[in-house]
Amino acid sequence: MANFQGDKQKVRAILDAVKKEGRDSLTAPEGKLVCDAYGINVPKEGVVSSAKEAGTLAGSMGFPVVMKIVSPDILHKTEAGGVIVGVKNADEAVTAYEQIIANAKKYKADARIVGVQVQQMIKGGTEVIVGAMTDDSFGKLVAFGMGGVLVEVLKDVTFRLAPATREDAASMLDGIQAAEMLKGVRGGKPVSREALQDVIVRVSQLVSDFPEISELDLNPIFASENGAIAADVRIVVNFDQKPARFRPDEKAVVTSMKRIMQPKAVAVVGASNEAGKIGNSVMKNLINGGYKGKIYPINPKDPEVMGLKAYKSVKDVPDEIDTAVFAVPAKFVASALKECGEKKIAGAILIPSGFGETGNIEGQEELQRIGREYNIRLMGPNIYGFYYTPSNLCATFCTAYDVKGSTALSSQSGGIGMAIIGFSRSAKMGVSAIVGLGNKSDIDEDDLLLFFEQDDNTKVIAQHCEDLKDGRAFAEVAKRVSKKKPVIVLKAGRTAMGAAAASHTGAVAGTDKIYDDVLRQSGVIRANSLRQMLELSRGVPILPTPKGENVVIITGAGGSGVLLSDACVDNGLKLFKPMPDDLDAAFRKFIPPFGAAGNPVDITGGEPPITYVNTVRLGLEDDRIHALILGYWHTIVTPPMVFARNMVEIVNEMKAKGKTKPVVASLAGDVEVEEAAQYLYENGIPAYAYSTELPVEVLGAKFKWARSAGLLK
Amino acid sequence: MANFQGDKQKVRAILDAVKKEGRDSLTAPEGKLVCDAYGINVPKEGVVSSAKEAGTLAGSMGFPVVMKIVSPDILHKTEAGGVIVGVKNADEAVTAYEQIIANAKKYKADARIVGVQVQQMIKGGTEVIVGAMTDDSFGKLVAFGMGGVLVEVLKDVTFRLAPATREDAASMLDGIQAAEMLKGVRGGKPVSREALQDVIVRVSQLVSDFPEISELDLNPIFASENGAIAADVRIVVNFDQKPARFRPDEKAVVTSMKRIMQPKAVAVVGASNEAGKIGNSVMKNLINGGYKGKIYPINPKDPEVMGLKAYKSVKDVPDEIDTAVFAVPAKFVASALKECGEKKIAGAILIPSGFGETGNIEGQEELQRIGREYNIRLMGPNIYGFYYTPSNLCATFCTAYDVKGSTALSSQSGGIGMAIIGFSRSAKMGVSAIVGLGNKSDIDEDDLLLFFEQDDNTKVIAQHCEDLKDGRAFAEVAKRVSKKKPVIVLKAGRTAMGAAAASHTGAVAGTDKIYDDVLRQSGVIRANSLRQMLELSRGVPILPTPKGENVVIITGAGGSGVLLSDACVDNGLKLFKPMPDDLDAAFRKFIPPFGAAGNPVDITGGEPPITYVNTVRLGLEDDRIHALILGYWHTIVTPPMVFARNMVEIVNEMKAKGKTKPVVASLAGDVEVEEAAQYLYENGIPAYAYSTELPVEVLGAKFKWARSAGLLK
Repeated sequence: MANFQGDKQKVRAILDAVKKEGRDSLTAPEGKLVCDAYGINVPKEGVVSSAKEAGTLAGSMGFPVVMKIVSPDILHKTEAGGVIVGVKNADEAVTAYEQIIANAKKYKADARIVGVQVQQMIKGGTEVIVGAMTDDSFGKLVAFGMGGVLVEVLKDVTFRLAPATREDAASMLDGIQAAEMLKGVRGGKPVSREALQDVIVRVSQLVSDFPEISELDLNPIFASENGAIAADVRIVVNFDQKPARFRPDEKAVVTSMKRIMQPKAVAVVGASNEAGKIGNSVMKNLINGGYKGKIYPINPKDPEVMGLKAYKSVKDVPDEIDTAVFAVPAKFVASALKECGEKKIAGAILIPSGFGETGNIEGQEELQRIGREYNIRLMGPNIYGFYYTPSNLCATFCTAYDVKGSTALSSQSGGIGMAIIGFSRSAKMGVSAIVGLGNKSDIDEDDLLLFFEQDDNTKVIAQHCEDLKDGRAFAEVAKRVSKKKPVIVLKAGRTAMGAAAASHTGAVAGTDKIYDDVLRQSGVIRANSLRQMLELSRGVPILPTPKGENVVIITGAGGSGVLLSDACVDNGLKLFKPMPDDLDAAFRKFIPPFGAAGNPVDITGGEPPITYVNTVRLGLEDDRIHALILGYWHTIVTPPMVFARNMVEIVNEMKAKGKTKPVVASLAGDVEVEEAAQYLYENGIPAYAYSTELPVEVLGAKFKWARSAGLLK
Repeated sequence: MANFQGDKQKVRAILDAVKKEGRDSLTAPEGKLVCDAYGINVPKEGVVSSAKEAGTLAGSMGFPVVMKIVSPDILHKTEAGGVIVGVKNADEAVTAYEQIIANAKKYKADARIVGVQVQQMIKGGTEVIVGAMTDDSFGKLVAFGMGGVLVEVLKDVTFRLAPATREDAASMLDGIQAAEMLKGVRGGKPVSREALQDVIVRVSQLVSDFPEISELDLNPIFASENGAIAADVRIVVNFDQKPARFRPDEKAVVTSMKRIMQPKAVAVVGASNEAGKIGNSVMKNLINGGYKGKIYPINPKDPEVMGLKAYKSVKDVPDEIDTAVFAVPAKFVASALKECGEKKIAGAILIPSGFGETGNIEGQEELQRIGREYNIRLMGPNIYGFYYTPSNLCATFCTAYDVKGSTALSSQSGGIGMAIIGFSRSAKMGVSAIVGLGNKSDIDEDDLLLFFEQDDNTKVIAQHCEDLKDGRAFAEVAKRVSKKKPVIVLKAGRTAMGAAAASHTGAVAGTDKIYDDVLRQSGVIRANSLRQMLELSRGVPILPTPKGENVVIITGAGGSGVLLSDACVDNGLKLFKPMPDDLDAAFRKFIPPFGAAGNPVDITGGEPPITYVNTVRLGLEDDRIHALILGYWHTIVTPPMVFARNMVEIVNEMKAKGKTKPVVASLAGDVEVEEAAQYLYENGIPAYAYSTELPVEVLGAKFKWARSAGLLK
C-alpha cells in the first residue's frame, strides 16, 4: 500500500520521453516536474534561452536567483562552470547567462544546450539531504542526512527501505548523529519535522512506484520551521531492470520447511558403513540422535547400512520421503537431486562442497534449476547439515546434539556452526535448531524465519550471515517475525576488510550502514560479535519480557555498581532515577546506614544473605520497578552458592505471586562464583562471573526487543 | 621545559591590572594583547570611543569590519546586541557605533563602556576552535575542535594536557572525527597544519605559564592554507589558586613502596586467633601464603597469635617493621597509625572501612595528617589489602593467591578486586601483584606505577579506577612508564550514570572525553569493560612484541576469516594486503586449489595438521609478516588438541630460530576446543573458543602499546 499517492501519469510521461531519447538522467526542469507530480517542494524556476529573457524572468521571481546550465550532456554542472549563484539584479542575470553558455561550450564543445535555468534562491534554513538509491540486496532505499560536511566527511546519513512510512521518516530524523541540529541550534528555530517527513515519504514512494529511477538526490534541501524546499534535484534512471528474484509464496515455504525440519522419513544419499565417511557420520547421528521417523540409506552397492535396508536410489524407496541428506561427492549431486525431485522429496540437505565456493558457479546453478523444476528446496550446498531437536533430528556429519531448548540458530559458515555447537554444549544452552546455510543456493535466512515464526518450539531466532541474498525479503519477514520473537543477527563482513574476506562463500556485502539501519528498521537485534550472538541466544529466551523501562541495580559491591551503571548506558537501559522517596526509604530500611539507596542500591559488602533477599524482594514486589540487575560481592558472610540459592528462591517465590521480572546478575569473587553463576543461569537468572557488562548486554537485548516489538510502555 | 617562549612580562602586566580591578575576565583588547604577547594571530583592530573615529579606523583597515562593544561588565556581547558584523563602509560604521552603544545601555544600564572595538573581518577559511580549561584532576588542558555545530552538536572536540608539544598538537588535528575537513573538502585547499599546531602549542603554553587563566577560548579561528587567525578571544581568570596537591618526590615514593611491597617484616595490627575475624584471615594468609619475612601480630590481649609471639603495640616490637596491615575497627586506626609512625614503618595497609566512603571525611583527613607527619604511606582505607607474589606476600583478608606471573593489577573497589582474584585463579593468569586502593587517602595509581616501573617482576600494569585524584601526576608518570611496560586502565564511571554511582568511594569523575584523550596521550591502553581488562592483563604479557604492522590471518574456517577480519579493523590492526606475489604463491603451494591465499589465507576446512603447520611456518619464517591470527575449524582430520600441540611446536621451533612473533588463535568447534585453547594459552598463544573477537582484542592491545611506545616501524 502506498504511503502517498503521486501523479504517476505525469512522471510516466517524463520517464518515457527520457527513455525514448536514450538518456540516463533527467534535466533539472524534468526533475522539477517529477517533484511537482509528487508534491515535493522546489523553488520557482524557468528555463530561458536568451540573456534578455534571463533578466526578465529573474526579475519576476525576485532576487537573488541562481542560474544553471541545462544540458543533457552536462551532469556535473558546477564542475563545468555552469552554475552562478547570488545573481542580484537584472543586469547581473544578463551577464551570468552569457558566462554560463561560454563556460559550457568550453567544458564540452558538443554539448547540447537546452538553455539556462533561472531559479529562485532559497535563503536561510538548515541544509539537509534526502536521496534514494538502489541496492542489489535491499532494492530501493531512501536516505536522509544533514547537508554539507556532515554527510561528506562524517558520513552522518541514515537509510530505510522504500517506501518509507511517516514513522520510518520520523525515525530517520532522530537517527542521525546530528539530530539535535533539527531542533534548532545557536538560538535557531526547529525545522518542521512534518515537512521533512513529507519529503522522505514522497521520495521513497516515487522511487518505489518507478523502479527505473535508480538514484535520486535532493541536495540541498533548505528546511525551516515552515517547510522544506529542495534547491537541487538530480535523478538518474536505469531502464534495464534486473529480473526480480524468485520467491515461492510464504505458505509454500512453510509447507516445505515443515516437511524438511519435521520429516516423517529421511533418506541419506551416500549413506555408508565406512567409519570416517560423511555418509557414515550422518547415519550415526540420525540413529544415535534418537530420530523416530524412518531412515532410508541410499547406497548403490551395499544392501544394508548400519543395520538398515539400503536402496540404490530414492526412487526405489516404497514410502514417501520428506528430506534427503546428501553425502556424495559434488559430481554426483545433480543426478541424485533429480531423482529426489521425481520422488517429490520436499528438501535436499546438500552437505557436499565443490560448488559456488570453489568457483563452480555452473554446478550450483544446475542444482538451482533442478530444485525449481521439481519444487524441491535446497539447503546449502557446502554445509554441515542441520539439527532440529524437537524431532531429535541430527541431519549432519558433526556430533549429535541433544540439549533441547528454544533458540533456533543458523550460520552461513560451517566453522561458525561448529562454534555454535561447542558453545551450546559447553554453556548447556538449549536449542531448538542449528542450521547450516552455506552457499545459500536456495533456502536462506528468511525461509528459516518463516518456519521458526510458526514453530512453537522456538522462542528466539539467531542468525549468522555474511550477506543476505534478498535483503528486502529478509527485512520484510523479519519485521513481522521480530514482533513475535526476538531475532538476533550477527552480520559478518561489517568492515571493508571483512567484506573482502566474505568472498569465500561468494557473499558480496553492501555498505554496513545500510544493513545496520535496515536491520534496526526490521526490529532485529544486531550482535556485535560471535560471542555476543551466542550469549544473547542463551540469555534472551530465558528472561521474561519487561513491562516497563525502570531498571534498578542492587549491589553488594559499589565498584560493580559503577561499572553496571556504565553498562546500562552502553546498552540503552534506563536506571530508575530519581527513585521515588517512599521506595528509597523502603530500600534504606534494609541496608546499613552507610550504604546508599538511590540507584544503584548499594547494600555494601559485608551483608548477610537476608539483605540481598529483602532488597531483591522489594525490587520484585514494587510494580514501579521493571527489571533488576544484581551485583554480588563474594564474602564469607554470604558465600556464592548461598547467594545464588537465595536469589533463585526469592525470584521463584515472587513469580508464584505473579511478579515476573527480568533479573540478571554480575558476580565478583573467587572461583566459586562460577558455579553460582551457572546455577543462577540454569534457574532463569542470566549471571556472569568476573563481568559487569555481559549480564547487562543480555538484559539490554531483551529490552531492545521488547521496545521494538511495542511491548514496553 | 616550555614548548614556546612567550612575552611573559606583557601578560603579567595585563593580568596584574585585571586582578587589581577585581575583574574575572579580560576585555577583548586585553585578550588581543595577550595573544600578541604569545604570537597568536588576531585580526587588526582598535578601540574607538566615537562614531566618527569608528568610520576612520575601519576605513584604514579595509572593509568589511566587525564592531563589538568593549565593556568589562558585558561578557556575552552578542546577547547584548553588542556585535555588528559585515560593516561595509564608513557610513555603516558610524551607524553601527551608535547602535551598539544604545544596545549596550539598554542591556545593562550601569555597564561601564570602554568603547567599541573595530576589527578586521576575516573571510573564508575553515572555522576551528582552540581553547583551554582547568580540570580538577588534570589541571590545565588544551582543546581543539571544528567550529560551529561540530563542536556544539556533535561534541567533536579533543583534549590534551597543557603544555602540549607540536606532536601533541598534530595528534589533536588528527584526533577529531572531522579531521578530514582540515585536508580540504569540496575542492577547498587544506589548512596549514603548522599554523594550527602553532596556535595549540602557544595557547597551551600561555595557560601553563599563567595558572590564573582558568579558561581561554579562541572561537572561531579562521584557518586557511596560509595561516590561522583567531577572530574572537575570551579569557577568564581566577586568582584564587587551589594549593597544589602534595606529592613526595619519585625517589621517596619508590623507596617507601619497595619497603611496603617487599618488606622484611610485617606487623598485623589487630591480629586475632578468632576464625572469621579479619585479623585472623590476614594472619593465615601471611603464614599460608609462604611469606618468608618476619610477622609480628599486634594484639592488646593475647600473648600469642597463631603460634607467633604477639605485641601490645608495634612500638614494643624489638626489630624494624616495614609494613603494617590494619585489621582493627575504624575508631582505633588513628592511634595505632601514630604508633606505626613513631616506629618508622614505611606503609600502613588500611583494610578498615568507615572513613570517606561512609561520610567520615574528618576521620580520613586525620589519617592523612598522621601519614604526612610521620612520613608513613597509607594504602586505603576501605580495602582488601594487597598481594605481591614475588615476596609470597598475601597482606589481605581474602584467600591466598599463589599463581606467579608478570601482571600487576590494582582496583579502586573491593568487589572488582575479588573479580580480579577469581578470574586470575580460574584462568591461571599469573600475577605479580593485586592491590586494593579503596578510598585512596594517599597511595594511588601513580605511586603503584612508580613502583611497578622499576619492578623486574612486573611486565604489564593493569589498573581499575573510578577517578584519578591527581590525573596530571598519573598522566605524567604513565607516559614514561608506558614506554617500558604496557599500562592498561579500566576507567569506571565513563557515563554520567556511572559517574554518579562512583560516589560510593567519593570519586568525582570528570568528562570522560578528557580521560580518554589524556590516557591515550599517556600511552595507556584503555579497557572498555571489566572482562576486557582481565583478558588483556592475561594475554598482553605473554605475547612477544611485534616488529611491524603486517598481520596475516591463517584460517581453516572461511567464516572465521571474515569475522577475524572485521575484528582486525575494530582493533586497529592492519591486514598485510595485497600479499606480495611470491608470498601469495608460497602460501598457495600448501593449500587446496579452491582455498584462497590473499589474506585471510583460507586453507579450507578438511585439511590435515600439516597444512596448518606449513602455512604457519611460512608465516613465522617470512620477515615481511609480523603477527599471525589463527582460525581453527574442528574436524576429525585435525582434532583440537592435535592442532594445539602442532601450533605450539611450530611456534617454539621458529622461536628457537629467532623468529619470534605474536600469534593468537580463535577456535571454532565442539567443547574439546576449550582444552585446546587453554593449552595454547599456557604455551604462549592467547587462544579463545567460540570467539573471533577476543584473540584479536588481545593482539590489538599489544600492537597499540608497541605503537605508542615507538617500537613499531
